[in-house]
Amino acid sequence: MASVNFADKLSRKIKSKDSRVVLGLDPHVALIAELDDRLWKENNRELVAEVVRDFCIKVAEACSSSIVGVKPQVAFFERLGPPGWYALEQVVEACQKLDLLVISDCKRGDIGSTASAYAAYHLGARASSTDFPSLNADAVTANPFLGIDTLSIYDSYLSDGKGIFALVKTSNPGSGLLQNQILSGSNAMLYEHLGAELSEFGRKFIGECGYSAVGFVVGATHPNEARNLRRQFKSSIFLVPGYGAQGAGASDVAACFDENGLGAIVNASRSILFAHRNERYAGHKWLDASSNEAETMRRDINRAIENAAP
Amino acid sequence: MASVNFADKLSRKIKSKDSRVVLGLDPHVALIAELDDRLWKENNRELVAEVVRDFCIKVAEACSSSIVGVKPQVAFFERLGPPGWYALEQVVEACQKLDLLVISDCKRGDIGSTASAYAAYHLGARASSTDFPSLNADAVTANPFLGIDTLSIYDSYLSDGKGIFALVKTSNPGSGLLQNQILSGSNAMLYEHLGAELSEFGRKFIGECGYSAVGFVVGATHPNEARNLRRQFKSSIFLVPGYGAQGAGASDVAACFDENGLGAIVNASRSILFAHRNERYAGHKWLDASSNEAETMRRDINRAIENAAP
Repeated sequence: MASVNFADKLSRKIKSKDSRVVLGLDPHVALIAELDDRLWKENNRELVAEVVRDFCIKVAEACSSSIVGVKPQVAFFERLGPPGWYALEQVVEACQKLDLLVISDCKRGDIGSTASAYAAYHLGARASSTDFPSLNADAVTANPFLGIDTLSIYDSYLSDGKGIFALVKTSNPGSGLLQNQILSGSNAMLYEHLGAELSEFGRKFIGECGYSAVGFVVGATHPNEARNLRRQFKSSIFLVPGYGAQGAGASDVAACFDENGLGAIVNASRSILFAHRNERYAGHKWLDASSNEAETMRRDINRAIENAAP
Repeated sequence: MASVNFADKLSRKIKSKDSRVVLGLDPHVALIAELDDRLWKENNRELVAEVVRDFCIKVAEACSSSIVGVKPQVAFFERLGPPGWYALEQVVEACQKLDLLVISDCKRGDIGSTASAYAAYHLGARASSTDFPSLNADAVTANPFLGIDTLSIYDSYLSDGKGIFALVKTSNPGSGLLQNQILSGSNAMLYEHLGAELSEFGRKFIGECGYSAVGFVVGATHPNEARNLRRQFKSSIFLVPGYGAQGAGASDVAACFDENGLGAIVNASRSILFAHRNERYAGHKWLDASSNEAETMRRDINRAIENAAP
């Protein structure tokens, strides 16, 4: 049975849910500590990993009707050592049971057999008769700094229904140091050159929807660059971080979408996970605040796309 | 008690052992399977992680007199899921008991609190009264593609005796795609621009030896770029991968050292770990072959440095 292309899976989910929202699972332990009344023993990473796991699954469940997927930030699980990885594996499985797509935000980048080992863990099957049990995420984020040759190890996964989102223009203030360097000869900026190479690499993996299973990470905090990339690269889905706590809003992300409201998904983490800390949700319980905020974000983005339509 | 700067620790070890060799711990499971006669159940990652742990500790011990440290390649441990991370933690602790420096080759790169979480796990203390138990490596490799601003989270670790090696020119054939782009204006290549920024960032962390705790990863497979970087950046220690199985030899790495034989360490993984597979070591047992190869590499590099001296 041939696998459905990742871009097609994602585009169908965007349409059926009328949502472009991805919930970033960034379990900041200090903020979760305010919520969980279970015994809180500092330094007990086994216990904390269980609390983190339950936190992530509950909030994903509460928001599930407003979002197309989740993006666990691997660093926060890795921080807890091996128990954190067990928690991550359980979170991924639980979210997929909620019919959510899971993007493992691991930003790995390495060469040869090393890159293959990362890909095999993050995108490999949960249970397999021929290989070790793996995380089985639907997609990963990838760091392309070492060169496009290092991404060829994803070929078999991309052919098999999995996706990657390569960093092109990141949301941090200093991302221009390398990414916005103007290249001699072409006069393109580095991120544009990278976009062109990635777009070419992704051509083999374009689905029926016209988009490729090789997407770009494009920070919402840089709307000019996002608009520029959208204009140049018509077949790349953008995974857009930076919404909410990092400062970008719905009008900043509208330019990432095509005229059919496809071609991008927007991630928010803290603004949804910890919405109860926002004075707008004073009096709301934690999960009520989170699900309200996810739904508000879904509608805000949809409205901004409609308003931006020509 | 003030911590000893990482560059000073490393330089002292280079002098006392008269070695510039780092043993890369890349436990390729398929190759280890040929060596270990314990029950080999495919897909049993708990058992395989134990075998991998014992493999790494044994070979580090066998080679310890010829090497200054080890560089566990995190991907191979991550591949095994949570049991792999337990194995990695035990390998790091065992190697430090052998008085070897440990460089966690994780190549992480992210922003803000995410980058902090990675740093806290890889460089944090094994046991602490104020934070979760961590890997406690002596140094990490870091991917600087997101920008130098993302490295500032390492400040407290660098002040506390830890080191980082940022990717500047990687050993893979396609590394030039981004790294060798010529920048408009300065006419510098991207890797040179990055070297200059990293060198500036590392100035605060220069030790008594004249080198900084912020080093560069510079592939031995690109000797011209290595020579160029050595000439321009006098206070950066180079971590040089690509020796042995990737094709570079002692004469390729000589240019990475200063006139005192300091300023670089050279990593080899497969050529030492699996030396018994080389026909040169026909008839040798596994650990004999490995320790012989590590010692040969130590002498070859020292000789090449002497021959290259003006």
